[in-house]
Amino acid sequence: MHVFARKFLRIVICILPLVAMRQDNRLRVIFFGDSITQAGVSPTGYITKMNEILKLKGQDSNYELIGAGISGDKVYDLFLRLEADVLSKKPHVVFVYVGINDVWHKTLSGTGTDPDKYVKFYEGLIKRMKAENIRVIICTPTVIGERTDASNPQDGDLNQYSKLIRDIATRHNLQLCDLRKSFHDYLTHKNPENKEKGVLTSDRVHLTDEGNRFLAEQMLEALLQK
Amino acid sequence: MHVFARKFLRIVICILPLVAMRQDNRLRVIFFGDSITQAGVSPTGYITKMNEILKLKGQDSNYELIGAGISGDKVYDLFLRLEADVLSKKPHVVFVYVGINDVWHKTLSGTGTDPDKYVKFYEGLIKRMKAENIRVIICTPTVIGERTDASNPQDGDLNQYSKLIRDIATRHNLQLCDLRKSFHDYLTHKNPENKEKGVLTSDRVHLTDEGNRFLAEQMLEALLQK
Amino acid sequence: MHVFARKFLRIVICILPLVAMRQDNRLRVIFFGDSITQAGVSPTGYITKMNEILKLKGQDSNYELIGAGISGDKVYDLFLRLEADVLSKKPHVVFVYVGINDVWHKTLSGTGTDPDKYVKFYEGLIKRMKAENIRVIICTPTVIGERTDASNPQDGDLNQYSKLIRDIATRHNLQLCDLRKSFHDYLTHKNPENKEKGVLTSDRVHLTDEGNRFLAEQMLEALLQK
Amino acid sequence: MHVFARKFLRIVICILPLVAMRQDNRLRVIFFGDSITQAGVSPTGYITKMNEILKLKGQDSNYELIGAGISGDKVYDLFLRLEADVLSKKPHVVFVYVGINDVWHKTLSGTGTDPDKYVKFYEGLIKRMKAENIRVIICTPTVIGERTDASNPQDGDLNQYSKLIRDIATRHNLQLCDLRKSFHDYLTHKNPENKEKGVLTSDRVHLTDEGNRFLAEQMLEALLQK
Repeated sequence: MHVFARKFLRIVICILPLVAMRQDNRLRVIFFGDSITQAGVSPTGYITKMNEILKLKGQDSNYELIGAGISGDKVYDLFLRLEADVLSKKPHVVFVYVGINDVWHKTLSGTGTDPDKYVKFYEGLIKRMKAENIRVIICTPTVIGERTDASNPQDGDLNQYSKLIRDIATRHNLQLCDLRKSFHDYLTHKNPENKEKGVLTSDRVHLTDEGNRFLAEQMLEALLQK
Repeated sequence: MHVFARKFLRIVICILPLVAMRQDNRLRVIFFGDSITQAGVSPTGYITKMNEILKLKGQDSNYELIGAGISGDKVYDLFLRLEADVLSKKPHVVFVYVGINDVWHKTLSGTGTDPDKYVKFYEGLIKRMKAENIRVIICTPTVIGERTDASNPQDGDLNQYSKLIRDIATRHNLQLCDLRKSFHDYLTHKNPENKEKGVLTSDRVHLTDEGNRFLAEQMLEALLQK
Repeated sequence: MHVFARKFLRIVICILPLVAMRQDNRLRVIFFGDSITQAGVSPTGYITKMNEILKLKGQDSNYELIGAGISGDKVYDLFLRLEADVLSKKPHVVFVYVGINDVWHKTLSGTGTDPDKYVKFYEGLIKRMKAENIRVIICTPTVIGERTDASNPQDGDLNQYSKLIRDIATRHNLQLCDLRKSFHDYLTHKNPENKEKGVLTSDRVHLTDEGNRFLAEQMLEALLQK
Repeated sequence: MHVFARKFLRIVICILPLVAMRQDNRLRVIFFGDSITQAGVSPTGYITKMNEILKLKGQDSNYELIGAGISGDKVYDLFLRLEADVLSKKPHVVFVYVGINDVWHKTLSGTGTDPDKYVKFYEGLIKRMKAENIRVIICTPTVIGERTDASNPQDGDLNQYSKLIRDIATRHNLQLCDLRKSFHDYLTHKNPENKEKGVLTSDRVHLTDEGNRFLAEQMLEALLQK
């Protein structure tokens, strides 16, 4: 073997464990949700933006952020793919961010989720993740419409499901990321014209660049909170 | 003819025009609405209670209160029976109190009313009543659930339809009886436990005795306001 | 006045009554419906095609075909605009072709029409048109999905509303144009693969060129039947 | 120890294995479903009736029939409680009879199940039961309304979901119990007046005594078929 090749090999052998160690040290975080999370890994999505912020802070090497969002998903869809899309990846932290479709589909297609069943499946998710010692952070659903005077058609129902999630957080002693409250507070200041869309969302639900940035900040704050 | 009979006849002849005049002077008020108004003429209903209050004030002879409520009615049902149930009775005043079923039936049976159509039919009602020089008082829908933290499932939608009605009042220069606001203010004080029902309603929608009394007061205040 | 001008004037004076007479003799036919009828007056629409067929038969001068369709309309929307869009135009014949949205919107937006209300408004339409001595032809709703094995989700409901319309035809002694039956018979032969769309419709509801042609033939046959 | 006690003990020791053997030989059959199955174990329910028929045939000692029905359940509810209510009981045979609520709740409460998700969860159920070597028999949904002319509002959707189930049976090589077909054939003969309810159901969905008897026969035939 050539002397340079030997040297290179030696270096690789020395570095390899370090690389492996570094990988072991990375905190693996999965974002488990619907279309907002599916778009989260796009170039302008909130997960991409979280990576960018971490990079600026020089902390990107400490985290591995993984998107596990599928468009149209409700809580029971997450339950069905929990093993394949979350548990099998051995995450340290999982954000659960689901509920908009559970409410929205009630009038959109007649296929929403009853509140009692929503809680049942949500607690089913938590039980299985807790059994794997995963740190679970649960999020309240953001918005269907950006009006700040409580006149978006699904506001009452989203508030109801948000309360259910806050109750779950209390009951199971879980970290809560109260996105619905954050979004409402933000819009109270930034949507003085009481517009239906165009501030944090482009279509009343899916996020604008501003929306993705704001969500990234909220998620990151929750992640680093501990 | 016997002398007493003659005397009686003479008295009757003198009184008759007075009676007629008195009847002419009675203000004919129609309450046009859904099941809440249908129950309004029952012994414990809000229209019955309005009559009782007027009697206590010695003013019952000045008003004729007529219920025209049918269970399950939405705005377009009122439009269909406007001639038969309202215009034909030559009222001086009409309270329009409709909207709960327009919202509620969306998830109850898939047969609610789109907001733009709600406005169209509402304005159709008003146009035809204004052509008859009727004083029209329009009411915002009360409640579907009595929670005061904006978490009753239809709160957002009821708020939306209430805003549509307030806009109609402004646009057509009509008196507004803002029942949704009154109910909310009342419940904020009288429902400290944030109960879903049991204060003003027995089943989240239909009124308890307390509910009928409170509604009677609101309606009467609106009627006497002018 | 110049001699030619005089001559021209004389000719015009002679022709004018003929023109007027010809106009008087044209049978004014209104098609009253939803988006399918709104598209009916487009270059490829069924009303345009009816005109083309009449032209080929040399009968186009005997008929004036008028489209009065608005996208999204249900039976009560027709009721609201009956005066403005139909009665004011003094038609001799009116085709009523409505019902798809009354069924479809139940799950699409939670704003369909209850069967009993559907009948009420339908009979309201008929009553007002009969009072004007209009020949009314009522149509059963066509399709939401083209499968022929009764497995399109709304098949049962469309069949129910079709029966309600057939009952109305019997009860009010009206001519029936049973489009649902015609479409089903046609598809039984022409859709051997049991496809959901692509034969008479492009999207399960709105018509292809073949659909418009077939509908034109059905409508024309009904019109000429008398 | 007293001589009689000893004797008794000896007898018990001899009998015990026989009892155990007898239990081992019984075929454990679970009926997994919704309110119809929940009522199936009532004194007049279909599972009770199956036991009665087996008794008459002198075969009741060969079967253990267990009801696992919960009112309001849809396919994903079964998925959630599969382990607790089915797998943990080590059944040899499982009847899956679910789908009515998946369709019905679309307009009843806006919380039905999308067809693609219905299939996903259904196949999820099957996969887990097959892994336990359970003989799975899958049933098409019976009826929502007993009219035989395809005009019950949900007929199209029930037919659609029935086809999905038949496809699943083919794809997974499973025994099919085509209840929807059986009910339709039965009603074609026994419901000549095309009544909405009152033959096999008391309320368009839940079974009369006749309905329970007919269902018991269908289920038993499927069970004994192998």
